Formats: sequence, structure tokens, C-alpha cells
Amino acid sequence: MNNAYQNLVALNKEISLLGSAASALNWDQETYLPKKALAHRADQLSFLSGKIHAMTTGAEFQNKLQAAEQEKPNNLTEAANLREWRHGFDRSNKLPQELVERCSQTTSLAKAAWAEARENNNFSLFAPHLEKLVAVAKEKAELWGYEDEPYDALLGGYERGAKTKDIAEIFDTFSPHIIETARLAVHKSNANPARKLEGPFPIEAQKTLNQEIAESIGFDFEGGRIDTTAHPFCTTLGPQDIRLTTRYYEHDFTASLFGVMHEAGHGLYEQGLPSDDFGLPSGDAVSLGIHESQSLLWEAHVGRSPSFWNKWFPRAQELFPQMQDWSVDEFLQTINQAKYSLIRVDADEATYDLHILLRFDLERKIINNQIAIADIPTAWNESFQSMFGIQPPSDTQGCLQDIHWAMGGLGYFPTYTLGNLNASQLFHKATQDNNIKNAFDQANYNPLLNWMQENIHTHGSTYLPQDLMLNATGETTNPAYHLAHLKRRFLD
Amino acid sequence: MNNAYQNLVALNKEISLLGSAASALNWDQETYLPKKALAHRADQLSFLSGKIHAMTTGAEFQNKLQAAEQEKPNNLTEAANLREWRHGFDRSNKLPQELVERCSQTTSLAKAAWAEARENNNFSLFAPHLEKLVAVAKEKAELWGYEDEPYDALLGGYERGAKTKDIAEIFDTFSPHIIETARLAVHKSNANPARKLEGPFPIEAQKTLNQEIAESIGFDFEGGRIDTTAHPFCTTLGPQDIRLTTRYYEHDFTASLFGVMHEAGHGLYEQGLPSDDFGLPSGDAVSLGIHESQSLLWEAHVGRSPSFWNKWFPRAQELFPQMQDWSVDEFLQTINQAKYSLIRVDADEATYDLHILLRFDLERKIINNQIAIADIPTAWNESFQSMFGIQPPSDTQGCLQDIHWAMGGLGYFPTYTLGNLNASQLFHKATQDNNIKNAFDQANYNPLLNWMQENIHTHGSTYLPQDLMLNATGETTNPAYHLAHLKRRFLD
Repeated sequence: MNNAYQNLVALNKEISLLGSAASALNWDQETYLPKKALAHRADQLSFLSGKIHAMTTGAEFQNKLQAAEQEKPNNLTEAANLREWRHGFDRSNKLPQELVERCSQTTSLAKAAWAEARENNNFSLFAPHLEKLVAVAKEKAELWGYEDEPYDALLGGYERGAKTKDIAEIFDTFSPHIIETARLAVHKSNANPARKLEGPFPIEAQKTLNQEIAESIGFDFEGGRIDTTAHPFCTTLGPQDIRLTTRYYEHDFTASLFGVMHEAGHGLYEQGLPSDDFGLPSGDAVSLGIHESQSLLWEAHVGRSPSFWNKWFPRAQELFPQMQDWSVDEFLQTINQAKYSLIRVDADEATYDLHILLRFDLERKIINNQIAIADIPTAWNESFQSMFGIQPPSDTQGCLQDIHWAMGGLGYFPTYTLGNLNASQLFHKATQDNNIKNAFDQANYNPLLNWMQENIHTHGSTYLPQDLMLNATGETTNPAYHLAHLKRRFLD
Repeated sequence: MNNAYQNLVALNKEISLLGSAASALNWDQETYLPKKALAHRADQLSFLSGKIHAMTTGAEFQNKLQAAEQEKPNNLTEAANLREWRHGFDRSNKLPQELVERCSQTTSLAKAAWAEARENNNFSLFAPHLEKLVAVAKEKAELWGYEDEPYDALLGGYERGAKTKDIAEIFDTFSPHIIETARLAVHKSNANPARKLEGPFPIEAQKTLNQEIAESIGFDFEGGRIDTTAHPFCTTLGPQDIRLTTRYYEHDFTASLFGVMHEAGHGLYEQGLPSDDFGLPSGDAVSLGIHESQSLLWEAHVGRSPSFWNKWFPRAQELFPQMQDWSVDEFLQTINQAKYSLIRVDADEATYDLHILLRFDLERKIINNQIAIADIPTAWNESFQSMFGIQPPSDTQGCLQDIHWAMGGLGYFPTYTLGNLNASQLFHKATQDNNIKNAFDQANYNPLLNWMQENIHTHGSTYLPQDLMLNATGETTNPAYHLAHLKRRFLD
């Protein structure tokens, strides 16, 4: 029994009680909070986050961590937790309080300016704020430190252990192929127009279908639930308390359904983490690129597949009688159309990664001083033209569309494409097993889920993301599987 | 500017941020918590209550309180807050940690034993636990101190400043009259059987009616909401965040409606407290007897009145077409029936107080060693026979029916009847004003609510309950008004 280690565990369990209380308050804020209660809720959350920050960066944490580091870890899990605690503690403590506060203030002003710039289609309203955001990001990168380039330090905040040059190498391999695949997919979809859904699809019926499907893929409603919010998300309030949200459109039941499958994918990962390690790195998800692989696996690989709809389409027809004269093939064609879109969040599977490649390239240049802030709109539009063959008619539909930069989230975007690549690679590897493949073809997803639980979920943050991929699939992230998947789905 | 006072205010505001976070977690536990999440939620709540206890009883609080007491208060509010902080601090600190823990453990075991005793109709399973609960209650009473008898110290925890002998005097005056009034009311109802409601009353329609009525009496849905739970309650998550709950029965829409009006009455009190003083005694409700006066005012005086239904019955008929051949008078007769019931929570207005008088008398004897625990069932049944003229067929429907004792809540019961008496007295006083009375007769309750806001809500805990009653009505609690109200409603 390593006593110093156990003391550190106990402190982290306490921190996680406050952290998960804050998650509960955040969830309530998005779902049920009365309008006038917002100011008090903000006070509560700011108080809790102050307490949590103090506990994770203070002398008690430092002393307990140092003491635990003197002991020899009993196993891989203990060693990994110590590694992650040290990493997190150092990263937090490298930033002086003054910078943390300046960063928070800069972000707060930038978000408002971004919203205004977007509304008025006027990049220059946002430019001075972006200038400051980039300066702050570089300052943080210098303090955090990096091996090759400052973007490493930013990226690492979202994708633990990732290095810019590795991502760039993967993306460079991927880029020409995905651009070509997307072009062919869009061409094919344009040549074969799909039938259009005809609403209304009653919201109660949508809820029924979503619930049945989420349950059938393994989401445990005794340890989670689905509510309605303006922006869908998945959040964890405790080891057996995973809450998904979605939004409903009466004219299209597939929007809420794929939303639920996506969030349920995140939820299955969270439900599959080791409950006893809740609040420790070994009980926590390892990175955004792995998290997103789980959501995309269930949304895209399962939810948009023929075998899935062979099973579920009759149920959809029962709930939505206007679908009764549709064939499954017609429906599959409708949900798997490829077309170029200006807006990332509206993009389909075939074209989504183009949006990310563009942003990664631009972000990296911004951080490396290879492009001036004022030149971003032009650079954006040129890249967009060359990748999509169309010109954004406005910055609102171009470089102002995402909130990420305004929130200081430089380095976040690449994790979306990492998620896509990882999803296809994990799916490929899992379905090499004939039992999993046969069950999948009969819309039985237990074996697939079990594989993900054993190879991904149960490890928490014990392995770094690329080690996890290596252990699970025999290689680190390789874009070949995602390309093959897209070609099969869109070009065959 | 009293600096020491302001420091104490700041500390109390911090405590209230944690306290209201715990309220939010409790609310979520009753409404939306997934089944398997209960254990983690218990850990969160126990951690928060430990922190809050430490903050309200620790050296920092004591030092800040002592410093603030050295200053001369600027006004009545500051003086009242200091008075209440001192009272609360001393009360908490008089109990050694060992006793607090023993009390919590005793209660925890007693609740389980009570549930089992109730299920098996076997008082002897609960008796040894009640013995311990009473011993602990007496131990606490001795530590807290009292003027006349130990029951004072227990009662004072629910009704600030109340003394047993004053309550006994009020109840002794009230008792023979209410027993006789109840007898006559039951006789009259039996002689004139009321028409029975015929369901189903769809739950969505019930929700619509409840929402419209709660809004019309002044409950602000921008600072509150209604959800569904097994046991109705009202809870405060912040100064503009008051949450009510109710339960629905398809066979009787009045159950959820009067439940909502009752909880909305509590909610109007909470919404009427001074927001800026949230977390301070001056922004907090003063006692259970005053709180219950507000819920009963809206449920009974407003909700069961002829003028209310002259306005709302047509709307109920729209929502529930089976009511269309009813007259308002028939309906009023149905909702204002008096009959003897074995179970307190099922009792009507005319007979409810009999249940409380019985319990108060018994509790006081228990604490004063005038009755042995083993003799409680016999004493209960004899009192019940003499007051209601019927004999409980079992202890489950007799002395085992309420959870209060099992939770250690000795001294709680009298506040229900205090609430009834205060409600009638406040209603009488308010409607002495012709504008309020005329508006009331036209089912316009704004003037009545304004009066309650000015005379009760806005004062928070600045005045002790009986001073508040005196200021508002010119006299302390006087049972004459409630008797007159019941005679008017049930005997005229």
C-alpha cells in the first residue's frame, strides 16, 4: 500500500466531487435553469471553479504529489496517474495568475466581438481581438514549452502527447486523397439526387425512436438520460451519470437521431470508463481525438450503415407513417448524400475533413507568424476555393463561422479529423473479427461495444492516445482506413 | 461602512453559494437523477454539507462574527442578521461532533426500522430506535438550553423564538372549538354527499391548468419552474430560482392543482424575499409556521374559494370536457368536503388540525418523560378515539404513519397548525382592506400578494415570527380567525 499515493488519490476524489457538482450545475444551466437564475448560477460556477483551481494547483497538491513520486508505483495504473497528475500540475502552474485572468478577460471580450463581427459580416471588428487571443496563446505556449514549434503546446491541451509535425504528416498524406474522394462523392450525389424527407415528424415519436436506438446500442439509461437543448452535448455528472442532449426539428427526424447516436457514442465511452477510478486520470477519457472516435463510430459507422437500417427502418416507418412508401435504399441514399457546404457543422462525412484541413493549416501559420491576422479572410477564401471549388460569399459563412478561436481554442480543430481517422481505424480493426463483423451485419452491436470497452474505454488515460491506438489496432493513426471507408460508402 | 460586518456578509455569501449548489443537487436527485447515480450524488452532498458545516461553525466564522459584534449596527437589518448569525453559530457549536455523528447514525438506522415497522404494522420494531431518538433529542435540548422545558429547544429549531407554553396556550384555546367545528363539518358533509370526479383527466391538460393558475396568482416562471416528483416540494436554488414539484393522478386533477397552489404559495414567499440579501438571514424565510401560512393561504383561502372557481371553472371545463355538466357549486362542494381520515396527509381543512393537536400533546409528554415509548400506540389510539370518534385499525395507520420522528424531527408538527392559524389571521387582516377584498372577490390576487410581500416576504428573518405577526396583524397568533374561516367555509 503506497500511502502517499493513496493520500493523493483521496485529494483527487475530493476535487472530483466539486468538479462533478459544477458539471451538474452546468447541465442544469443548459437544460432547465429559469431565465432570471443565470447570474446566481454564474456566481456558483465561478466560486466552484476557483476552489477547484486552488485545490489542483496549491501547495497541498504539490506536496502530496511530490511525496507520491517518491514511492515506487505498484502498477501501470499508478504510474500513469502520477504521470498525468504531474503533467497537469506543471501545465497549470506554469501560467502566472495574471496571465490566467488576462486570458479569461480577453476571451470574454473576444466572444462578444466575434458575435458582432459575425452578425455584421465584418471581420475587422473581430481582428484586434483575434490579435490579442493569438498573442496570449503564444505567451502560454512559451510558458508551457514545446519541442518543435509553439503550436505543439496548444494542440497538446486537447490531444495529450500529440505533436504538430506528426499531425501534419498524417494530414499531408490524407489531404490529396480526401480532396479527390470528396470531389467524386459530391459529383456522384449531384448526378443521383436523393428523395427528400417530408415532415412533420412528431417530436414525441422522434424521442421514442431515439430512446429505443440509444438503448439498443448499449447506452444504459439507469446511468444516464437524454434531454433537449439548443446545442447538443454529452456531459458526465458522475461515474454512473452520463447525460446526453439533442435538439428536434419537425421537418427532419434524422437530425435528432444522428445527434443522439453521436452523443451516445461519447456517452458509451464515459459509461465504459472504470467507475472506481472516477476522478483519477485512469478513470478519465484520454483525449478529444479518442472521444470523437467513439461518437463518430456510432453515428457514422453504425448509424449510417445499410445493416443498421435494415433493422430499424421498419420501426421508423411505424412511427412516421409518411415513410411507408420509401425503400430502405432510398432512405440510405438520402442520409448519405455528399455535397459541398460552406458551414463545417452542416458538412457530411465525405466533405467534413476538408473543413478541418483548411483550419489546421491556417492556425499553424497564424501561430508561426506566417500570416498576418488581417490576411486571414483572403487566405481562408483562397484555400476554400482550391479545396471545395467554391468561394464563400461572406466572412460570416467563411472565417467567422466557428466560435473556437474566439474562445481561445487554437489547437482544437485537428482533433475532429483525428476522431474521424481513429473511428475508421478502430472500426476496421474490430470488424476483422468475424464474430463482430457478423453480429454487425445483423445489427447486433454488443460485440462491437465490448471490443471498444476492452480496447479503449477501460484504459481511461492510462495510455497516451497514440499508444492506445497502437495497442488497439497495431499501428498509430493511419488515414488509409478512413479513406477506404469513405470510398466504400460514397463511391461504390 | 461597517467593515467587519461586510466581511461576515462576504463569508455568508460564499457559504450560500455552496448551500445553493447543494440545493440544486438535491433538486436534481428528486427530479432527473438516473438510478445508478445515487451513490455518487450522496458522496457529493455529504462532501458539500461537510464543507458548509465547517464554514458555518469554524474559527473564521467565529472571529468574523465577534469582530462584527464589536461594531454598532447601522440599521435594524444589520442588527437582525447579527442576532441570527449568533443564534445559529451558538446552536451549532453547542453540539459536540460526536453527538452530531451519533445523531446522524441513529436517524439513518431509525428511518429504515420505521419503514419496516410500518410495512409490518409492528411498532415494536421501531420502539428501540424511537427510544434512542428521544434520548438524543433530550441530550441536544440540554446542550442547547431552554427556559421552561426541553421541548422549547426542539421546537425553536423549526419555529424561531417559539415557546412551548405559548403554543400550548394557543392550542388549548383552539382545541375544544376545532374538535366541535370538525364534528359539525363532517356531519354536514356526510348528510350532503358530494358528486364524485370522473377521470381520466389527461396529465398534459392538468399541467396546462396548473401552469396558468400558478402564473395568475403571481408565481414568476422566469424565476422558477414546476417539475414532477413522487413527493411534492418547493426548493430554492438561488434568489431567482424557485422550483416547485407536484405529482399527477389521472382520476383527480384537483390533487396536482392544490398541490401546485400549495407549493406556489411557498414559492411566492421565496420569490418575495429580498434578492440582494440572499444567503443572509434578512433574505431568508423566518420559520416553518410562517412559510406554511403562505402555502395554505394560496391553497386554501384562494384555491378553495367560490370567487376563485367562478373565474377558473370554465377553463377547467374547457380542458376537461367531462366537467361540462357540472355547476360551480357542485364542484365547490366536492373540493370542500369534511370527513375524518386516519392519515394526516389525506386530511381536509376542517379536520387537519386535530391530527396536529394529537401529535403535539404526545410529543411533549414523550420529551417530558410523562409517557413511556412502549405506551405510545395505546395513547395515540385513545386520543384518536376521543378526538375523531374512531379507532385506528393499525399502528401503520396510526402512530407509525409519519416519517417525522424517524428523522429526528421532534418539535416539527406544531408548525403545521401554526401555519393554518397564521394563514387565516393574515388573510383576515389583509382583506379588511376593501381594495384587497374587492379584488379577491373578482379573483384578482395582485393586491393580496402585494400585501403579503410588504408585510411578510420582504422582511425575511429580520423580525422573529411572532413579532412579524404582531406587526402585520396587530396581534400575535390568535386561533379565532382560523375557527371563523372554517365555520364560514364548512358550516354556513
